[in-house]
Amino acid sequence: MKDAPVPFTRPPKGGCRYRMTISYDGTGFYGWQCQPDRPTVQEALESALLKLTGETVRVHSCGRTDTGVHARAQVAHFDLAIPREAWKLQAGLHAMLPETVRVPLLRQSVPNFHARYDAKGKEYRYSIWNAPVASPLHRFQALHVRPRLDVAAMRAAAAMLTGTHDFAAFSANPRREIGGTVRTLWRLDVRRQGENVRITAVGDGFLYKMVRSLAGHLIRVGKGVVPVEETGSILRSRRRTARVETAAAHGLCLWKIYYGALPKCPPLC
Amino acid sequence: MKDAPVPFTRPPKGGCRYRMTISYDGTGFYGWQCQPDRPTVQEALESALLKLTGETVRVHSCGRTDTGVHARAQVAHFDLAIPREAWKLQAGLHAMLPETVRVPLLRQSVPNFHARYDAKGKEYRYSIWNAPVASPLHRFQALHVRPRLDVAAMRAAAAMLTGTHDFAAFSANPRREIGGTVRTLWRLDVRRQGENVRITAVGDGFLYKMVRSLAGHLIRVGKGVVPVEETGSILRSRRRTARVETAAAHGLCLWKIYYGALPKCPPLC
Repeated sequence: MKDAPVPFTRPPKGGCRYRMTISYDGTGFYGWQCQPDRPTVQEALESALLKLTGETVRVHSCGRTDTGVHARAQVAHFDLAIPREAWKLQAGLHAMLPETVRVPLLRQSVPNFHARYDAKGKEYRYSIWNAPVASPLHRFQALHVRPRLDVAAMRAAAAMLTGTHDFAAFSANPRREIGGTVRTLWRLDVRRQGENVRITAVGDGFLYKMVRSLAGHLIRVGKGVVPVEETGSILRSRRRTARVETAAAHGLCLWKIYYGALPKCPPLC
Repeated sequence: MKDAPVPFTRPPKGGCRYRMTISYDGTGFYGWQCQPDRPTVQEALESALLKLTGETVRVHSCGRTDTGVHARAQVAHFDLAIPREAWKLQAGLHAMLPETVRVPLLRQSVPNFHARYDAKGKEYRYSIWNAPVASPLHRFQALHVRPRLDVAAMRAAAAMLTGTHDFAAFSANPRREIGGTVRTLWRLDVRRQGENVRITAVGDGFLYKMVRSLAGHLIRVGKGVVPVEETGSILRSRRRTARVETAAAHGLCLWKIYYGALPKCPPLC
């Protein structure tokens, strides 16, 4: 679901806007967004900032990740009424935050930087451990798929999904998508390295649970449950049905947000 | 420390020997070897086998890993007085074991197979997350090193360590090494991929904490704390001193055991 628009604000007079990159292990969190009585990444950051600065701060991220989804480089912005040195804030956050959340980059930004509205694109990676037996070392960050996946078939299906399409069939809630269901997938790649199969999705935006739906579909194609050709008919149907499965959250990682320069993607750009 | 020799036994008459590959997340274990009142991998396997078969079984591994060290493919053997189908044992183990231990391969072996004595070599990998800020997604399986490591210097030092040497200076307990302290390192590699720096060590055998000592030394070289040239003098000294640090256990993973064919290693073989 595309997030509902938030009013575009500026930092208070004399205050300052900050931009940060956040890395988190989603295992123990109920996703990004604040929820009553449940640990979320946004809540962890906001309460750490409150303790540090005494200010009640709202942290706006580029995208809200679901329960269990990880992030290598989520981006967010927030405002402080009383400006502070960025490196001190960063060090303070690392003292306050659990070790499941780190802030590899924090700096003052221009006052009109907006983590969501300024983003040109996003990259997600979906990891699969493809072997008859699960891997203890990958269990929190990769989906275990027993039967050998046909990566060539998955790639053929992925090629049919690349480009600008109405992805309603790959949204978990197409009716609630604000701004319609057309998106551009610049890149949808499948690579195998031994038992690791990785799906990379780069696009200008993603519908609600879209990457997990794309991954779920590609996995069924790789298993031979769905023929490659059905990909086109599912996409054209623009209806979400049981033909598309949503792959488990723990395999997904928000890899990168693109601001400024667009990603270089051989198939389209 | 090279393990003390165990008497070479055969399976009981009418019984059967089994060989298995074991993968484990070492985080929650006090290493491989049984210890009173502490969770170890050996104890987990032996108690699962007892529950499954009613037999008190000793599981002999190729090498005993220390507390916190992981394994992608440890190899072990054990005997049963009453033979059972290997696939049933494997399925039973997966039902009994915690998900931190898996057995990707289990089969009946020849009665004189010995996980330790038949091994020709071992491969370990040591993982480093090399960035100013730690990574929540790598925190249990890579050592966090803040300053940028000079991989070229680490490689130059690694080249001086490759080959057949007396590695007493890289053993945590050189006096207790049974069978002396001479070993052959077929390969000692350092590679960077973004923030990930990986040390690969392949050899005919390793002294007590030898890989972690090699990693600790290479990291100090990479930081510029120890000059590359000191590697030779440390090695030749054959004395373990504070000049060599033991890198933390959680970065280490027992990657592979070589039986039969020796690994292909460009520098030496």
